[in-house]
Amino acid sequence: MDITEFQKRGKEMVDYIADYFKQLEKRPVYPDVEPGYLRPLIPDSAPQEPENFEDVLKDFERIIMPGVTHWHSPYFFAYFPTVGSFPALLADILSGGIGCLSFSWAASPACTELETVMLDWLGKMLNLPEEFLAGRDGEGGGVIQGSASEATLVTLLAARTKMIRRVQSENPELTEADVMSRLVAYASDQAHSSVEKAGSIGGVKIKTIPSNDKFAVCGSALKKVLHEDRAAGLIPFFFCATLGTTPCCSFDRLLELGPICNKENIWMHVDAAYAGSAFICPEFRYLLNGVEFADSFNFNPHKWLLINAECSALWVKKRSDLTSAFKVDPLYLQHCHQESGLVTDYRHWQIPLTRRFRSLKMWFVFRMYGIKGLQEHIRKASNQLNEALLKSINEARKIHLVPCHLREKFVLRFAICSRTVESVHVQFAWKHISKLATDLLKEC
Amino acid sequence: MDITEFQKRGKEMVDYIADYFKQLEKRPVYPDVEPGYLRPLIPDSAPQEPENFEDVLKDFERIIMPGVTHWHSPYFFAYFPTVGSFPALLADILSGGIGCLSFSWAASPACTELETVMLDWLGKMLNLPEEFLAGRDGEGGGVIQGSASEATLVTLLAARTKMIRRVQSENPELTEADVMSRLVAYASDQAHSSVEKAGSIGGVKIKTIPSNDKFAVCGSALKKVLHEDRAAGLIPFFFCATLGTTPCCSFDRLLELGPICNKENIWMHVDAAYAGSAFICPEFRYLLNGVEFADSFNFNPHKWLLINAECSALWVKKRSDLTSAFKVDPLYLQHCHQESGLVTDYRHWQIPLTRRFRSLKMWFVFRMYGIKGLQEHIRKASNQLNEALLKSINEARKIHLVPCHLREKFVLRFAICSRTVESVHVQFAWKHISKLATDLLKEC
Ligand SMILES: Cc1ncc(COP(=O)(O)O)c(C=O)c1O
Ligand SMILES: Cc1ncc(COP(=O)(O)O)c(C=O)c1O
Repeated sequence: MDITEFQKRGKEMVDYIADYFKQLEKRPVYPDVEPGYLRPLIPDSAPQEPENFEDVLKDFERIIMPGVTHWHSPYFFAYFPTVGSFPALLADILSGGIGCLSFSWAASPACTELETVMLDWLGKMLNLPEEFLAGRDGEGGGVIQGSASEATLVTLLAARTKMIRRVQSENPELTEADVMSRLVAYASDQAHSSVEKAGSIGGVKIKTIPSNDKFAVCGSALKKVLHEDRAAGLIPFFFCATLGTTPCCSFDRLLELGPICNKENIWMHVDAAYAGSAFICPEFRYLLNGVEFADSFNFNPHKWLLINAECSALWVKKRSDLTSAFKVDPLYLQHCHQESGLVTDYRHWQIPLTRRFRSLKMWFVFRMYGIKGLQEHIRKASNQLNEALLKSINEARKIHLVPCHLREKFVLRFAICSRTVESVHVQFAWKHISKLATDLLKEC
Repeated sequence: MDITEFQKRGKEMVDYIADYFKQLEKRPVYPDVEPGYLRPLIPDSAPQEPENFEDVLKDFERIIMPGVTHWHSPYFFAYFPTVGSFPALLADILSGGIGCLSFSWAASPACTELETVMLDWLGKMLNLPEEFLAGRDGEGGGVIQGSASEATLVTLLAARTKMIRRVQSENPELTEADVMSRLVAYASDQAHSSVEKAGSIGGVKIKTIPSNDKFAVCGSALKKVLHEDRAAGLIPFFFCATLGTTPCCSFDRLLELGPICNKENIWMHVDAAYAGSAFICPEFRYLLNGVEFADSFNFNPHKWLLINAECSALWVKKRSDLTSAFKVDPLYLQHCHQESGLVTDYRHWQIPLTRRFRSLKMWFVFRMYGIKGLQEHIRKASNQLNEALLKSINEARKIHLVPCHLREKFVLRFAICSRTVESVHVQFAWKHISKLATDLLKEC
């Protein structure tokens, strides 16, 4: 495929996507396929000779589309939102086109510098404390991670390294393994599964703190566990607070928890993966109060802020906490500016080395929506129901939901996901659910 | 931006990218900017009101482009290749457009199933042993990771969990921390820095094995270290072999190392991050001999196989080794097919939860190049030189290189990176380097 053909095909692709969005409401939101449906439809191995683009695109519609769950359908209320927008899509096309990587400043200076500034812009939209911003010579700053799971993992690892060093400096006789075996991290019993995963990757104990009747962790609950654990010889080092829990969007009480963590030298990380976008609206900002006590804060613009996956924003107050946890520096990745203190090498802030130019889509979206446009997008709705109902809802394939457990209760999560959803779709969904519930009650 | 405007702008974007590729040879490969160049050029915070697309694109050319390192320029010989191609770009546009995620089968069945089949296709191209393929009911299979760093990390973690369980089942009195403190992983002194990083994340010791005069680890070197470490009470559990080391593309001796690892119950992971693509050519396949002894094998199609970043292919012989290391399973991510044994939930194979539809670009590239087209792409060139020379080369900004250390020697790595590079560019670069070297010698 030469440049001229790319130009032709690229435009056809743009038309295809535009058409997809026009027809989206008519496609069944959840596919009607059984596991293993795809393998019999495609050859056992790659073709020897090149095939042409038309055939591939035809097969996409014939083989792939019937197996796609339409996350952007206005009838999609499952999991969490994964909101994209046209400006973000355009930026992603451009980023793919120029295809530069940004693991160090020198690998592509613009990628790194735009990222730092965009995270400052976004931090200001959220009214994050100054200390989280990179500014011209701050100690803090932001980075784009691929996912909230990675953000939790890297902060837990940074906290682990910091605590091991602290304990060892006071107790030089202890080995790293001695300290590791006593470390313990905490999160709400409502926290996302990625916190447990981060603990297991990092090889440290994770304990859950019981949440209250509002499904929130309060200061006294944390204090109680800390007290017991210290008495048992454990070393608390990390607390992951959740703002907007996955099951029911409850909020841990940062204002009570923060001072405790600060006093006890526990790294407080705040996971606001899906709720975080709301904080750009002044009327929701109070929900973030207490973030001033946190060491790190994360949320996913790819969940609710109109930016395509993958884009998870993480800020830390001390960037050296991250970089000193990870720094491995072979000559082939070094460059003459790296010790100047002026540049950021994002490879020291994350797990992967390779990273695409992701800040471009932030820039496009922030500029083409403006803060006002983003706030308008946030100001929209939510709902719930039981097990058989969920089954009948999902079998009817008009809308799609996933459930969760709140204590012993099986709850249907109704998440407003799609950029294209309007109140008419929510009303349709509500009528549809009510009808199925009524049918179900008649059968009983 | 509505659908109609997206359609218009999307096509302009395609033209912009086509133009970029046409002019690429004329753009200086390495940017002439100092750290901090960007911040003064853009506002301190996001605009309140929406801006229009033309202004954003104009600013892209004015502010971003001068700071971009052109990874696809035919004069780019630094780091490693990050090869994209037009078919991959088209697939990425499509994947961004439909924007579905694939952390579980149910999240979007087509994403998961295409990924499994594409990794089988690619495995067959490499002539990987049958056990690495998923087939219809195999125990093995492949997954797309974001980067080789993540592939090394997840396999190290899987090996860690496996060894902890084994040791504890034989020695029930030992705690997990007891075992962890004795675990030791190995890699060549030439291995990529990501191996050290994986060890540090996983909280286990990493030791380097001295490579021989060909910069390769041979069996006797590994045996010697294992012998010493066992005598000291350590528990060897993971060896990362490198095929194609970053500094000079040397190959560890799999055929000697594999049987030792198998006999000693050590997980052998093979990192062929950039060299791996070559194995699709029968004349290079012998370099992969011994992979039959490995537990896992990884290489980056985004380095040399015409697939845009991020796309790192990882295969394991026993998928349960990965999934049992990571499985955390809250209700909101469960679905009725998951225990059927028929479906793959890729979230259990990786660090992030969120993942884009990445197999689409494999499918497009494999089909539109065909195996023959991909083999032709691989069949192209390599070279070297010293410190002052490197400086003068990079200051001249005609071509771009990065150095490495081979033992005490400072070596210039000349990597043929770009999809657009032809032998005329290599010849130009060679003449250019020769001239600068001659100038330098005259000055001495
Ligand atoms: C509160 C919370 N934290 C973390 C995550 C994980 O997000 P990611 O997929 O970006 O890892 C989620 C996802 O739903 C979430 O709701
Ligand atoms: C041998 C080797 N392994 C691993 C890596 C890391 O690759 P990634 O950027 O995909 O993490 C590289 C990158 O150059 C490499 O050369």
